Amino acid sequence: MKLVEVDGTEFVEGGVCAAKGFRANGICCGLAHKPLTGTENTAAADNALPNSGKKRDLALIVADKECTAAAVYTTNKVKGAPITVTKKHLETGTAQAVIVNSVNANTCNADGIEKAEKMCELAAAELGIAPEKVIVASTGVIGQVLPIEPIANGMKALAEGLSYDGNPRAVEAIMTTDTVPKEVAVKFSIGGKTCTVGGMLKGSGMIRPNMATTLTFITTDADISAELLQRALSDTVKVTLNRVSVDGDTSTNDMVCVLASGTAENTPIKKENADFDAFECALYAVMMNLARMMARDGEGATKLIECAVTNAPTEKTAEIVAKSVICSALFKAAMFGEDANWGRILCAIGYAEAEFDIDKVGVHIASDKGDIEVCRNGAGVEFSEEKAKEILSEEEIRILADLGQGGGAAVAWGCDLTYDYVKINGDYRS
Amino acid sequence: MKLVEVDGTEFVEGGVCAAKGFRANGICCGLAHKPLTGTENTAAADNALPNSGKKRDLALIVADKECTAAAVYTTNKVKGAPITVTKKHLETGTAQAVIVNSVNANTCNADGIEKAEKMCELAAAELGIAPEKVIVASTGVIGQVLPIEPIANGMKALAEGLSYDGNPRAVEAIMTTDTVPKEVAVKFSIGGKTCTVGGMLKGSGMIRPNMATTLTFITTDADISAELLQRALSDTVKVTLNRVSVDGDTSTNDMVCVLASGTAENTPIKKENADFDAFECALYAVMMNLARMMARDGEGATKLIECAVTNAPTEKTAEIVAKSVICSALFKAAMFGEDANWGRILCAIGYAEAEFDIDKVGVHIASDKGDIEVCRNGAGVEFSEEKAKEILSEEEIRILADLGQGGGAAVAWGCDLTYDYVKINGDYRS
Repeated sequence: MKLVEVDGTEFVEGGVCAAKGFRANGICCGLAHKPLTGTENTAAADNALPNSGKKRDLALIVADKECTAAAVYTTNKVKGAPITVTKKHLETGTAQAVIVNSVNANTCNADGIEKAEKMCELAAAELGIAPEKVIVASTGVIGQVLPIEPIANGMKALAEGLSYDGNPRAVEAIMTTDTVPKEVAVKFSIGGKTCTVGGMLKGSGMIRPNMATTLTFITTDADISAELLQRALSDTVKVTLNRVSVDGDTSTNDMVCVLASGTAENTPIKKENADFDAFECALYAVMMNLARMMARDGEGATKLIECAVTNAPTEKTAEIVAKSVICSALFKAAMFGEDANWGRILCAIGYAEAEFDIDKVGVHIASDKGDIEVCRNGAGVEFSEEKAKEILSEEEIRILADLGQGGGAAVAWGCDLTYDYVKINGDYRS
Repeated sequence: MKLVEVDGTEFVEGGVCAAKGFRANGICCGLAHKPLTGTENTAAADNALPNSGKKRDLALIVADKECTAAAVYTTNKVKGAPITVTKKHLETGTAQAVIVNSVNANTCNADGIEKAEKMCELAAAELGIAPEKVIVASTGVIGQVLPIEPIANGMKALAEGLSYDGNPRAVEAIMTTDTVPKEVAVKFSIGGKTCTVGGMLKGSGMIRPNMATTLTFITTDADISAELLQRALSDTVKVTLNRVSVDGDTSTNDMVCVLASGTAENTPIKKENADFDAFECALYAVMMNLARMMARDGEGATKLIECAVTNAPTEKTAEIVAKSVICSALFKAAMFGEDANWGRILCAIGYAEAEFDIDKVGVHIASDKGDIEVCRNGAGVEFSEEKAKEILSEEEIRILADLGQGGGAAVAWGCDLTYDYVKINGDYRS
């Protein structure tokens, strides 16, 4: 899937290890109950435990030294135990490691918090740091007790296998129904110093960011205060991850966190100046591309759909309208069928819970194969069905909705609704 | 599908013709472009035009004399032209006929209002009444111009074929993706006089009542003022049709209307007294059962799902929570897979946009085959997967969520998410 460039940044390899001073690893400790399907078996190439052939399920990211840290969490009232523990640990605005398991979300279990704290203690002990400097996350099935023994048994190998190029193993370890690993990194400049921001994300179903979506881990070597790091993260989440919907469900475990090591030795960012802007821009480049990857890898998806709303009364209205289209089951099914059913687009625009005049709305359907107008001033216009079909045959579709009544704009991302979504979710205790 | 009884009412046959003084008919005038599939070909038995084998597409309901009338309409900003015209006609609170076409929604067309008014004029001319006494409705594809010629050509036969038992033909004529005709009627008593309320509904996809859902036509022979008729209708819509979701989409053409002829000769209902309550009760019996039928016939549905929320801080909270569960794609897919995935239920409860304490929530899954507790105080409890599977094998599933913190209650209805939903909507220009 093509990456979208952002001025002032340049893509680099390495994901969460791209920034200086971060090591990562991922192993299979035995939580995985389904054999690896459809992805490369990398067990032979590293330090997996004797469950070869099963997916990695335990990941670790460690910074050479303590970092400033920030996070954003789900707004679902049901919060996974890991979130409760991580929130507590991040009260200081500092952290040095992230321990993540997949397969089991450690949510809605009576002993959840105890288990999440135990994971931090186990990691901390291997690393020689305090448990409060560890961020913990879990993803997978809700409501099944998390077995701690495999995690405890695997911690030594997990720590010993850390490396400055271990990001691919970590990414695999956080995946659940994802079909592809999602990571991206950019380098940019702050006052002549090269800085890097890199991230990895997992997320495919149960996605409707009404917070920060799924699990996203970001590292950077920029030197930035905890307060500004939090601000940059919160701002960027709002216009990226919070504008993705795969199926309208908001997870109980969604979290994004960022660690900033300061090893790039830029002039420390302590106020909202040009350096802060450059940092936010790089963070945006990473998170926007991760958001697109997530939407594209939506459960069962065959297409990435982007809805760009312009000229809305306000930005908020633009966002509400864009998300309304992206979330419409009927529209998503039409995209799967490559059917230029603009009536459903207009319908979704019409029931968006925002104030605007529907009679000024115009809609275009576009992709790399072209662009056609399908609606003007709230009514249909003639268009070539053949051209529409050609445009919709692409993997990335853009719906452009011009509300014609202001300066607000927003972009949201989603995917089509397919048979595979139903298949995956009709039989996956998650 | 079983009907649910309401105290004080008794089911009778006849749908919109059950109440005294109402005739109905439905013909195929040539709008239908798809042959009749899967339903009985009734063309031979009546006055269908020479398009035998195609679905009826034009319906008419006529009262012997002018009635008090009321309606509730979609809140989608995109409103079908028929709605605009009907609203205007109902300013007087009176009407005598309803003309409905299926196949084409007459929405988002430049000449929509002109066509909708023309339909009223054509019907009125055949019936010898004023066009303003005609309610008009359309359902089907959005954004394709409505051909008026077939309707004009068919009006004579449509009017001549009216009968006091013509309701089955009318119901067929309003169907689009519905797989079954939906009608129900009840008789009840007002001051010793027998009164009747009957209704018919069409609706299967693009359903999320944020108003009054799809097309519903109700007749009654009760004598009731226009103002109270409107109040009864609005109140009842809120707790029935507005609590159904098939796929989260709110249509552009949704409307419910009711005609009250007064021929039952009850003491006229002019204030909110016991007679008014009895009338509302009967209206509720009809609309609640129509709502359940609609949910059960959701596009591709194999199951009717009912979510009953009790002990919420307020009724509004209960409603928001019930609808949140019913609308969850992940939950719906799990129901299709007969998977007791209570974690998804709790997740949907958790992201409902209402204030309450998640740690007091308990959930049961039930059907005619039994009832099991799956969640208590916001956490999972042990349950028999075998028993759960048995319970979920039924066609009607009930999710019972007790919030444990108040007296508010509400019930919402929906259906499972299946491959057929995707199939139907991946290739239906609607």
